[in-house]
Amino acid sequence: MDRVNVVIVGAGGYGGCGSVEILSVHPEAKIVALVDQENVGRPYSSLYPHLKGFCDLTISPPEFEEIKERVDVVFFSTPDGVGQSYAPYWLKRGARIVDFSGDFRFRDLSLYGEYARRIGRPQEHKSPDVAKISVYGVPELYKEEIKEARVVGNPGCFAISCILGLAPAVKSGLVELDHIVADAKTGVSGAGKKVNPSFHYPHRYETINAYRIGGHQHVLEVERELSLLAQKELKITFTPHVVPMTRGILSTLYAKLKERPSIDEVLGVYSSFYEGSPFVRIAGPQEPQTSSVVRGTNYCLLWVNIDTRTNTLIVVSHIDNLMKGQAGNAVQNMNIMFGLEETLGLFRPSQFP
Amino acid sequence: MDRVNVVIVGAGGYGGCGSVEILSVHPEAKIVALVDQENVGRPYSSLYPHLKGFCDLTISPPEFEEIKERVDVVFFSTPDGVGQSYAPYWLKRGARIVDFSGDFRFRDLSLYGEYARRIGRPQEHKSPDVAKISVYGVPELYKEEIKEARVVGNPGCFAISCILGLAPAVKSGLVELDHIVADAKTGVSGAGKKVNPSFHYPHRYETINAYRIGGHQHVLEVERELSLLAQKELKITFTPHVVPMTRGILSTLYAKLKERPSIDEVLGVYSSFYEGSPFVRIAGPQEPQTSSVVRGTNYCLLWVNIDTRTNTLIVVSHIDNLMKGQAGNAVQNMNIMFGLEETLGLFRPSQFP
Amino acid sequence: MDRVNVVIVGAGGYGGCGSVEILSVHPEAKIVALVDQENVGRPYSSLYPHLKGFCDLTISPPEFEEIKERVDVVFFSTPDGVGQSYAPYWLKRGARIVDFSGDFRFRDLSLYGEYARRIGRPQEHKSPDVAKISVYGVPELYKEEIKEARVVGNPGCFAISCILGLAPAVKSGLVELDHIVADAKTGVSGAGKKVNPSFHYPHRYETINAYRIGGHQHVLEVERELSLLAQKELKITFTPHVVPMTRGILSTLYAKLKERPSIDEVLGVYSSFYEGSPFVRIAGPQEPQTSSVVRGTNYCLLWVNIDTRTNTLIVVSHIDNLMKGQAGNAVQNMNIMFGLEETLGLFRPSQFP
Amino acid sequence: MDRVNVVIVGAGGYGGCGSVEILSVHPEAKIVALVDQENVGRPYSSLYPHLKGFCDLTISPPEFEEIKERVDVVFFSTPDGVGQSYAPYWLKRGARIVDFSGDFRFRDLSLYGEYARRIGRPQEHKSPDVAKISVYGVPELYKEEIKEARVVGNPGCFAISCILGLAPAVKSGLVELDHIVADAKTGVSGAGKKVNPSFHYPHRYETINAYRIGGHQHVLEVERELSLLAQKELKITFTPHVVPMTRGILSTLYAKLKERPSIDEVLGVYSSFYEGSPFVRIAGPQEPQTSSVVRGTNYCLLWVNIDTRTNTLIVVSHIDNLMKGQAGNAVQNMNIMFGLEETLGLFRPSQFP
Repeated sequence: MDRVNVVIVGAGGYGGCGSVEILSVHPEAKIVALVDQENVGRPYSSLYPHLKGFCDLTISPPEFEEIKERVDVVFFSTPDGVGQSYAPYWLKRGARIVDFSGDFRFRDLSLYGEYARRIGRPQEHKSPDVAKISVYGVPELYKEEIKEARVVGNPGCFAISCILGLAPAVKSGLVELDHIVADAKTGVSGAGKKVNPSFHYPHRYETINAYRIGGHQHVLEVERELSLLAQKELKITFTPHVVPMTRGILSTLYAKLKERPSIDEVLGVYSSFYEGSPFVRIAGPQEPQTSSVVRGTNYCLLWVNIDTRTNTLIVVSHIDNLMKGQAGNAVQNMNIMFGLEETLGLFRPSQFP
Repeated sequence: MDRVNVVIVGAGGYGGCGSVEILSVHPEAKIVALVDQENVGRPYSSLYPHLKGFCDLTISPPEFEEIKERVDVVFFSTPDGVGQSYAPYWLKRGARIVDFSGDFRFRDLSLYGEYARRIGRPQEHKSPDVAKISVYGVPELYKEEIKEARVVGNPGCFAISCILGLAPAVKSGLVELDHIVADAKTGVSGAGKKVNPSFHYPHRYETINAYRIGGHQHVLEVERELSLLAQKELKITFTPHVVPMTRGILSTLYAKLKERPSIDEVLGVYSSFYEGSPFVRIAGPQEPQTSSVVRGTNYCLLWVNIDTRTNTLIVVSHIDNLMKGQAGNAVQNMNIMFGLEETLGLFRPSQFP
Repeated sequence: MDRVNVVIVGAGGYGGCGSVEILSVHPEAKIVALVDQENVGRPYSSLYPHLKGFCDLTISPPEFEEIKERVDVVFFSTPDGVGQSYAPYWLKRGARIVDFSGDFRFRDLSLYGEYARRIGRPQEHKSPDVAKISVYGVPELYKEEIKEARVVGNPGCFAISCILGLAPAVKSGLVELDHIVADAKTGVSGAGKKVNPSFHYPHRYETINAYRIGGHQHVLEVERELSLLAQKELKITFTPHVVPMTRGILSTLYAKLKERPSIDEVLGVYSSFYEGSPFVRIAGPQEPQTSSVVRGTNYCLLWVNIDTRTNTLIVVSHIDNLMKGQAGNAVQNMNIMFGLEETLGLFRPSQFP
Repeated sequence: MDRVNVVIVGAGGYGGCGSVEILSVHPEAKIVALVDQENVGRPYSSLYPHLKGFCDLTISPPEFEEIKERVDVVFFSTPDGVGQSYAPYWLKRGARIVDFSGDFRFRDLSLYGEYARRIGRPQEHKSPDVAKISVYGVPELYKEEIKEARVVGNPGCFAISCILGLAPAVKSGLVELDHIVADAKTGVSGAGKKVNPSFHYPHRYETINAYRIGGHQHVLEVERELSLLAQKELKITFTPHVVPMTRGILSTLYAKLKERPSIDEVLGVYSSFYEGSPFVRIAGPQEPQTSSVVRGTNYCLLWVNIDTRTNTLIVVSHIDNLMKGQAGNAVQNMNIMFGLEETLGLFRPSQFP
């Protein structure tokens, strides 16, 4: 088979950079164009010197018709609103799409409306027909749909960490649905490349804060997926925090157990659920729970515990926000879409320390 | 009045060091001896070079009779078990005691027994009579008792952050008592000065982890205090985390609201509760919530929010674990015990950045 | 005596903030106005929440005539060019000046010209007559002049670290003058409050770099002072680096020894030179050399060594760039100018860890 | 060809871990045993959970005869003294050796004696005959010798950074030989995995220090190599520092230029010298100089500058101390020894940020 030809739109941000890092040494992919509004004509490696020798393309403008090669898939590593503008063009050209924003995470346009309101862009979806054929890009839930999908909406970084951590418990009916709390801690890279006083090094070191309490947009994806799994509408309490590190999301997930299952029963439920999911690792209370497993990789580590005093299931879900929370998961989706080994280009350990 | 003469036992640890930092420039206190098992006879500043010129005592051995000066108060900045061994001696000598461990946080010896079991030292309290006259050292709750107290049990660092954050809501009956979740994040200094692979710099940078789920000993103090305030037994779900910073505890506290109060009503409850408490600052959702307020200071910042979607009160309680969580609070207790201005030696801003 | 009334111009930056932190609890100073171009009319504590309760002034515009109180001294914690514009006004009003920029570090206007060229502002000095009566604000060298000075030019942060580290050796003739190397490492706060991609947290963690090789403007002050001490023109090789920490400058200073003095002889030279300088600490090779001594304080720690293999004097000079390198040194200058105890408001230990 | 069968002795440390990270996904290598004194019988992934699924061997004891498979090369990622004890055994078995310590960096046993004295182990070399056939493992200098070598002494991390940075200048006669200064800054991982109060997270954050001034053992390798290149004995002044980051060495190298070459001439000398060296990157003054290029990779970035005021060549040499300074360079040596592509298993970009 020919290699998968990839165009990355929004190559200038972290999502684009992470995609290039993986795809430039992926054995079955070839990057054919890097597109960005800024720095057009400059070598990509002048933005990201560490990629010199790995990807020596220059940055193309968003005039896609200048890309002459066959394009199999377009990664939209762009802010909300971009993917939905250009999706029809690429679908017509026969390409498939993986979008990193919220543009294609919602088939339900009223839910998208609420999402758009939360991110401060309350406007109509520009490609509602495309939204309606999109597949939500959590391979652990939708592998079969992703295989056939023409458009995949890569999930929010917080969202995937919460969904993976809660899905087995909710699906299996282990927990009550009305008191779920998700307390998430992200590294600073989650906020992207754009400078901001709050992420100026001297302002961030030794600093932790909660933000957007009750109002973060990722909660909508989580609730939608958990409601589908539970076959019942539910809402969760979700609080994001920023901690002084660069990579990683650790979400601590709390749900009341209905009965009094043993930890082994619960671990059994989780293991069954994730059979065939190569990037989910499940650990019991006695096992190590360390950032080193996920840093720089596409793994999600689920550390499963019960607080027997309050009969609460506590799952600590740990990912690298730029990998399983972004570019790594996108490549995993691409692998599935093109019939490649799911782990191709992603099977490598993190570097410790 | 004469200065307050202070002996610090366990001067070698962070609690001792923090106490010396404050007391060496406190206008109404005088350190008369620094006691430790290790490094006896060495200048204190050889352990802590930054204190040279501020406190030039040498380290005394735990043979207290060699301390000839009048001693007004003894700070036991020592591991569990030490204060309870020596308290009777000092009380007999007429000194008062502030203990930093769990030794004097419990008048109820069966609760102490549970505490002792949790920290892996399941043994009888050595001075039960002293435990019974001890006062729990949260000045915001027990100022009057502390004035007269002969023995003060300085609270656990996690405990004080949770208690201050939840007390007004629980006392006022704003919240339901059976689904309280406390998700706490501490800097590494909370684990003390002793080296440990988990706190080796290369292992801790870019690393966050939850630990001792369902089993941390500080939860007992929190539940006892909240139960007293609620006049009803309650249990909470408490999960501590370590994040890659040195100082600070941020506890995110979740409790279901009974009714649907406005945020202003809730803020009113908090403001009333902490009237006359100079070290508690209350902020509403629109106000800045930043580590810089508490770092290096004795302040507790309470950031009060309501998640209206799930009708949950979310209070983010933020302290410096070594100040309001340890030495700063101890000095505040000392000030109260000796009729000094509560803020003496503690009224100074943090340094930013 | 009345308190010293201080106006801080450029209050919005780190230098202003640091000055307020010190002066708001300084027993003999009173801040009468905080001036800035931005955020006029806003409470200062809305910029710096940690100063709420310590300094509750609002920010004044640069229309100085609206300041009605007696003004004894103006701190210009402003970029290059500001102090020189307003100095005549304040001198006429009878105030004295401490300027944090390069505006008043050079009486020699041709040297100032070279400085202005290096910082990219090649223009004429606006107040040459004021420049000519300015005193260079290194109290360890110019205490007598500072007492009488109407205008003090607070030194560059790199400059003071290098000057204090090399002055005794150069003055005493211990070292050769033609091979001096200064390798300086600064924390990120040295670059100020303004955001910049290079100081975005994710870009700075785990990152160290050298910059402006051969071209940094601070080298001019160092060469001027060392040349005066040597009574001979000299040039040095100076390389600044940024390391992933917030506060602190450590300058490693290399100079060939002329003879083969013992370390004790060299230490003797340094100790004599700094007799009467309360903020300089000298340590020999066996003594601890740690950031904790200087962090958050006005101290300079000089760690003096000889590499006997190459007969090189190596002095490691360590300061907090925002204290001895900026606001702390400014307050020390103010204390000297107004006949106060030199250490007033500055005598306090750092907080460890 | 069969895969290269590798035994890693000292697998428990960072060098072993780094080697496993690379070799477990190296297309032409196979790890056949992981040996360590500690944790014998435990799965390697219980020490390093991030390697679960990549290397599921258990730890073998140092009884090598129990290793039954063919062994092509042994990595001694062990402290000084171990490799020299076991080298004869493995050579007899037909294996080749890459040693990470100082054991095989010196054919000259008197120089080894000085090295041994400096590290506090002043004793006779146990395998002097093996030392005499060892090759110094800097591929950029000794590629031909390494191809044939039976024993390679992997260089010290500081040493390789200094040698690569200075070799072209010294070899070409560009610089004077009697005033070379190397000011090196290392991340904390350079000190290894063993806990130490100085590397306890709270003691290291915001902390930088110089150490072992004039006495570090790596200087001997640097001087030996530079003397060989210069064909004249020389000594350098070398000062190591520890900065608060985990990975990376940045060495700032100073040498007086003899003539007044242009920067382009100097860059030409460097480029010619490193033609055919895939892991050395040369940058001129205008090019980006950033840690991201080397972090997690086997690259060495040389940023070449001239300070024209003092006519000094300043080369900033930047590596990842655990890769080009340790395991990465060892694998590069292995590739050369076994006729593989030099970059095999090492050609991948770092991950940014």
